[in-house]
Amino acid sequence: MIKKVRGLLIGRMQPVHKGHIEIIKKTLESVDEIIIGVGSAQLSHTIKDPFTAGERIMMLNQSLVEAGIDNGRFYIIPMEDINMNSIWVAHVSSLTPPFTKVYSGNPLVQRLFYEKGYEVYAPPLFNREQLSGTEVRERMINGEDWESLLPNATVEIINEIDGLNRIRQLSKKEVSER
Amino acid sequence: MIKKVRGLLIGRMQPVHKGHIEIIKKTLESVDEIIIGVGSAQLSHTIKDPFTAGERIMMLNQSLVEAGIDNGRFYIIPMEDINMNSIWVAHVSSLTPPFTKVYSGNPLVQRLFYEKGYEVYAPPLFNREQLSGTEVRERMINGEDWESLLPNATVEIINEIDGLNRIRQLSKKEVSER
Amino acid sequence: MIKKVRGLLIGRMQPVHKGHIEIIKKTLESVDEIIIGVGSAQLSHTIKDPFTAGERIMMLNQSLVEAGIDNGRFYIIPMEDINMNSIWVAHVSSLTPPFTKVYSGNPLVQRLFYEKGYEVYAPPLFNREQLSGTEVRERMINGEDWESLLPNATVEIINEIDGLNRIRQLSKKEVSER
Amino acid sequence: MIKKVRGLLIGRMQPVHKGHIEIIKKTLESVDEIIIGVGSAQLSHTIKDPFTAGERIMMLNQSLVEAGIDNGRFYIIPMEDINMNSIWVAHVSSLTPPFTKVYSGNPLVQRLFYEKGYEVYAPPLFNREQLSGTEVRERMINGEDWESLLPNATVEIINEIDGLNRIRQLSKKEVSER
Amino acid sequence: MIKKVRGLLIGRMQPVHKGHIEIIKKTLESVDEIIIGVGSAQLSHTIKDPFTAGERIMMLNQSLVEAGIDNGRFYIIPMEDINMNSIWVAHVSSLTPPFTKVYSGNPLVQRLFYEKGYEVYAPPLFNREQLSGTEVRERMINGEDWESLLPNATVEIINEIDGLNRIRQLSKKEVSER
Amino acid sequence: MIKKVRGLLIGRMQPVHKGHIEIIKKTLESVDEIIIGVGSAQLSHTIKDPFTAGERIMMLNQSLVEAGIDNGRFYIIPMEDINMNSIWVAHVSSLTPPFTKVYSGNPLVQRLFYEKGYEVYAPPLFNREQLSGTEVRERMINGEDWESLLPNATVEIINEIDGLNRIRQLSKKEVSER
Repeated sequence: MIKKVRGLLIGRMQPVHKGHIEIIKKTLESVDEIIIGVGSAQLSHTIKDPFTAGERIMMLNQSLVEAGIDNGRFYIIPMEDINMNSIWVAHVSSLTPPFTKVYSGNPLVQRLFYEKGYEVYAPPLFNREQLSGTEVRERMINGEDWESLLPNATVEIINEIDGLNRIRQLSKKEVSER
Repeated sequence: MIKKVRGLLIGRMQPVHKGHIEIIKKTLESVDEIIIGVGSAQLSHTIKDPFTAGERIMMLNQSLVEAGIDNGRFYIIPMEDINMNSIWVAHVSSLTPPFTKVYSGNPLVQRLFYEKGYEVYAPPLFNREQLSGTEVRERMINGEDWESLLPNATVEIINEIDGLNRIRQLSKKEVSER
Repeated sequence: MIKKVRGLLIGRMQPVHKGHIEIIKKTLESVDEIIIGVGSAQLSHTIKDPFTAGERIMMLNQSLVEAGIDNGRFYIIPMEDINMNSIWVAHVSSLTPPFTKVYSGNPLVQRLFYEKGYEVYAPPLFNREQLSGTEVRERMINGEDWESLLPNATVEIINEIDGLNRIRQLSKKEVSER
Repeated sequence: MIKKVRGLLIGRMQPVHKGHIEIIKKTLESVDEIIIGVGSAQLSHTIKDPFTAGERIMMLNQSLVEAGIDNGRFYIIPMEDINMNSIWVAHVSSLTPPFTKVYSGNPLVQRLFYEKGYEVYAPPLFNREQLSGTEVRERMINGEDWESLLPNATVEIINEIDGLNRIRQLSKKEVSER
Repeated sequence: MIKKVRGLLIGRMQPVHKGHIEIIKKTLESVDEIIIGVGSAQLSHTIKDPFTAGERIMMLNQSLVEAGIDNGRFYIIPMEDINMNSIWVAHVSSLTPPFTKVYSGNPLVQRLFYEKGYEVYAPPLFNREQLSGTEVRERMINGEDWESLLPNATVEIINEIDGLNRIRQLSKKEVSER
Repeated sequence: MIKKVRGLLIGRMQPVHKGHIEIIKKTLESVDEIIIGVGSAQLSHTIKDPFTAGERIMMLNQSLVEAGIDNGRFYIIPMEDINMNSIWVAHVSSLTPPFTKVYSGNPLVQRLFYEKGYEVYAPPLFNREQLSGTEVRERMINGEDWESLLPNATVEIINEIDGLNRIRQLSKKEVSER
């Protein structure tokens, strides 16, 4: 039995956009299987983190299917934040199949996995002008074109869950302090 | 047996001021009973949240009595923050008698209850120039008149617990970093 | 201004029964105001703890009104368990108006408050043959008379929330391990 | 766009056995997609819960592939216990795609989802003599045949992670109290 | 600079007894420095765990001084339980100076550190007839000789904090259920 | 037996610098024993809090030995933040030997202990131009002289754990948002 090479990629996916799909495709050229951690899984209903973990898992799953990626090659796993960096790698490991490679552009993530002996890589591809969650969320709030930045499957899900109205309502100023 | 119509109103009440009492009175014109959630119950001893939940419950209870409100018509319930918006409505519901109406000016609160099928209303009255917790706390720190913004009962309690000295000491700059 | 003497009484109230009302009445002969802590507030939907904190608060409030107790003389406050005995007294104190007397038959509660300098009393009255939560819950499960042990107001609430079916379903054996 | 019918099934999967695969197959005859919650995700390294969430997710995923189940039809989601039954349904919902049917033989799970308006079913198939986690774990400890109760893929994973030695060591009596 | 060899020893120390001191002495024959974890640090005021972490740290420190052990050679560190075995080793490591050896008779502790690559040893010495926390606590409750099982320094501290009365009161039956 | 006078001093010690050692020396002129709380013990691997509790305990212990301070006169105890000010004093007390004096320049710490009846002092000595954690960490990041601000023992430990590279990597901008 030949051991599979697995890579870990973590993102908040608020929401899933085309950049995520591209990175996953690229990463799959270097590993047998990819573990995709849906980060800050406990967050939702804020401007920065509008969607629940369940919604993001569904977006990711259906968008990967849409992209024709063999769904025997990825794991999607929600990961809550734990506010203790020193145990975070152990926490992630307990939630995932064994892996040896980590793909991240975040210095903290890089450092934490490096100190525990993992191979750490910067993500293989990154077109960051438009393909960022921040850009997508701003366009959603401002009524600009956001759909073209996302896989169709994700657009459909956002429509289904009334996501546009959600983020717009959340962006309103409060009439008064609570 | 006729079912009672209950409304929920949540505020941090740091401290209770005359605006709170007015809103509660107004709301009681539309519901049989009002459930008053004392929010961020776990917080105290900061400039923004100087008073404990227990102190705030006492302020509210005695100020409502002072205002002549029938104390068979309100529930006062401390509510700790939970940092997971998606379960917050369920959390609030588990701590309260059943209710159908929610009064809030906060877009997040409005959205969360709206998505779960509650009737959501903006609070019936709001004179926000002076009657805000922020204004009251600033006056307390700056030695200006704060008492006239509060019900007498709340003023008395703040005096009893040495609240003025507390907030003033908390507003001091640290001599040094810890 | 004369300081009020307040006493603390904590119970799980699963459900509120006539014994609770009697103890509260008796205690009110020795104090100006009574703070009633609804213990293990986070628990519900088990055989031992079938009712939510909100349901228990409602039971207690309406049963005390039914008993003709002046509702200016009691505070009802939900209290979650914290699994650290050494900070429990501080936790309770932060949720309540100031008090000096504690009424409890529980040796742990007695010891914890005693070590912090409170006056500790055994509850003033106790008819424990039938008036216990355990007895009430067993009768509910076994289809025996449970209503006569409870205040009418509590019986009504249990009926309203379908409480009898809840505890009976919870008492069923699982068809299989999960 | 036709809405998919989704069903939820929760199990601790300690470890995945042939009974789980059969239930999932049967359930897929009634729903479009199945959401499989890996329960008590935070537990591992005890006799009752020997395997981590990551190990169990891997077992389940590879055993479903082995069984020829279309991996576009299931979601596998780890779920930590939260010790507050009243918010558990909301917690589960926030981690999952929307679903309307729940399959469970556990009275508590049945009741909690029933009270929130879900359709609740007893799991469609159950051969409980041998196909139970308890039976499998006992055989592993006692050196009896356990492999025949599990899918091959799960047996391989247990071997790979040295799972047999783990559960046997955990079953030893302590030489002394800590 | 020569690297120090450090060993880890964890115990609840409820209370510190002569057996603990002997084990520490013996262990110090094999390592340069010993890290002593005071386990279940969050527990106190129960029959099984009567003393706070602070009280146990003081007992241990003064008893080691009394035993003439060079206090440049040990670290005493309180450790709260975390109910997630898979991250426990990382948690312990984050609280301690680096160590390579672990001394424990507990199969779970042995397994967890073994899986992470530590050298695991059974504790070097163990006279378990009388020198156990269970035996000490029972004697304290029953009014038998407990002092001879403990270092003098620990006896003095227990007397100072009124520890005998504490454990005896905690061992009483409750007059009634709460 | 004469009761010892103990003082409490809390600091994050990120990292230990010469100012900490001076304050401890000075404080030891007024008390028999000093309890040194290593604050925010759960934090590490950030620019503001780069070192783990275990690393900081080791720094402090060895630097105090280097300074010739009798190690029978201090306790070093890690303290995690708890986000509830009203129970923080009780939490600290449960982790420490009994103490009566508190040394702190932080208004919140001063107020919390003052309200619980402790004697509160501003720390006896404070040269804050250079001897601050902020200054040390900035110099480490900018490649300036940081070693002269720290005890030799702490410098050695930082070198041993590759601390300089850690803080420098953490200070890098992220290539992209996660």
